[in-house]
Amino acid sequence: MRPVSIIPVSGMPEVRPGDDLVGLVLAALTRLGEALRDDDVLSVAQKVVSKAEGRLRRLDDVTPGPEALRMAGEAPEKDARVLQIVLDESSRVVRWEHGVLITETHHGFVCANAGVDRSNAGAADTVVLLPVDPDASAAALREALRARTGRTVGVVITDTFGRAWREGHVNVAIGIAGLPALERYLGQLDPQGYELRVTEMAIADEVAAASELVQRKLDRCPVAIVRGMEPGGRSEPATTYVRPPERDLFR
Amino acid sequence: MRPVSIIPVSGMPEVRPGDDLVGLVLAALTRLGEALRDDDVLSVAQKVVSKAEGRLRRLDDVTPGPEALRMAGEAPEKDARVLQIVLDESSRVVRWEHGVLITETHHGFVCANAGVDRSNAGAADTVVLLPVDPDASAAALREALRARTGRTVGVVITDTFGRAWREGHVNVAIGIAGLPALERYLGQLDPQGYELRVTEMAIADEVAAASELVQRKLDRCPVAIVRGMEPGGRSEPATTYVRPPERDLFR
Repeated sequence: MRPVSIIPVSGMPEVRPGDDLVGLVLAALTRLGEALRDDDVLSVAQKVVSKAEGRLRRLDDVTPGPEALRMAGEAPEKDARVLQIVLDESSRVVRWEHGVLITETHHGFVCANAGVDRSNAGAADTVVLLPVDPDASAAALREALRARTGRTVGVVITDTFGRAWREGHVNVAIGIAGLPALERYLGQLDPQGYELRVTEMAIADEVAAASELVQRKLDRCPVAIVRGMEPGGRSEPATTYVRPPERDLFR
Repeated sequence: MRPVSIIPVSGMPEVRPGDDLVGLVLAALTRLGEALRDDDVLSVAQKVVSKAEGRLRRLDDVTPGPEALRMAGEAPEKDARVLQIVLDESSRVVRWEHGVLITETHHGFVCANAGVDRSNAGAADTVVLLPVDPDASAAALREALRARTGRTVGVVITDTFGRAWREGHVNVAIGIAGLPALERYLGQLDPQGYELRVTEMAIADEVAAASELVQRKLDRCPVAIVRGMEPGGRSEPATTYVRPPERDLFR
């Protein structure tokens, strides 16, 4: 097998609502002397997708309700309007302790603050929300890239999530098109005849994590190309990662 | 920034207790026409480290105690001897439900079955345990590689862990030498003056995840080189990832 390359797509401009994100990515690639190839996987940070889609809320437009006000009373460093937005983006609060708010988003993802982010929003008193349907966003990016370049690529939309038990954040996949979420090794036997312990690898999450290796030292590098991984033809949405509550020991 | 390359080190032989793991890696590299460079990061699967270190137990040598026997009574598909070994490798049981056993290892990692693995153990009725001190194992590999090649590299020892809330396993770092566990962005401000939401990225976990992108389709490819990521001079152990129980909302 050949090496896999992670290629940073640097030099993207600030993305604004209504921007043609695919056009901005292709222009950045051209400036870098790079071009998409079939079977490349494009890793795209959620924030630029959300901004292009206009998934922003101004704090001035928000009136916090009783639950947000109660929570802000328990954690004075929190803005009740931001808490209200997080609740709006959530189907359920998983934990609310010491000012840490872990919720389940409407997509089913469990993460801090429902992915609502005040940093790099592009305007004061504005927050960025997760895309309404990140899998659909990934599919739309994939189709637009195919229409404009003739290349068939995979797309992973990423966000940075914390983890239970482990310090630090990692990039994970919240939207997928054109590659599997899980690679299954079910039923494969090792040389002694035992079924392999690890049966499902979260390959799109690992693509997301890998893209951070080139994005970490660069300002404004929301996109990376993962080249050479042979994504295969199977496509699964990122909602495949949502563990059903009845199988979840930690929800 | 240049691309980061993930290079599979394929063609390793079966590793046995007492084997010279560094010698086996260097021989595989020579066969591939590859050589280590300064600032490469070597990602090494835990299983070959544990095997070289003799971290194996034969089930015939194990007498299950009352707790293991009680648990085997609750989950008849489980071998009481394996359960006893998992308990021996654990400081605490975090969850035991539906035959799923999540424990805290003596290192502090929370994972299924304390990392004890029956597959690919190299012999029937034998299980592989995690290294006693994976950070020390990583440091020893790093020093041996420096002594024998003159190159200064980073080393990450990986295992495949499940996650709370998300389906699928990912490769994570359980031992680190020569690179940071966390890259801190504390106090950095975005253009609007807000502190960045993501303050600590688990960079060695992301190295571990990236290495899976080349290992997934190959038999017996326990080692990969991550080249071009500029690991920097700071070194932190993988135990940095262990969230203190008093800060952990899910333990």
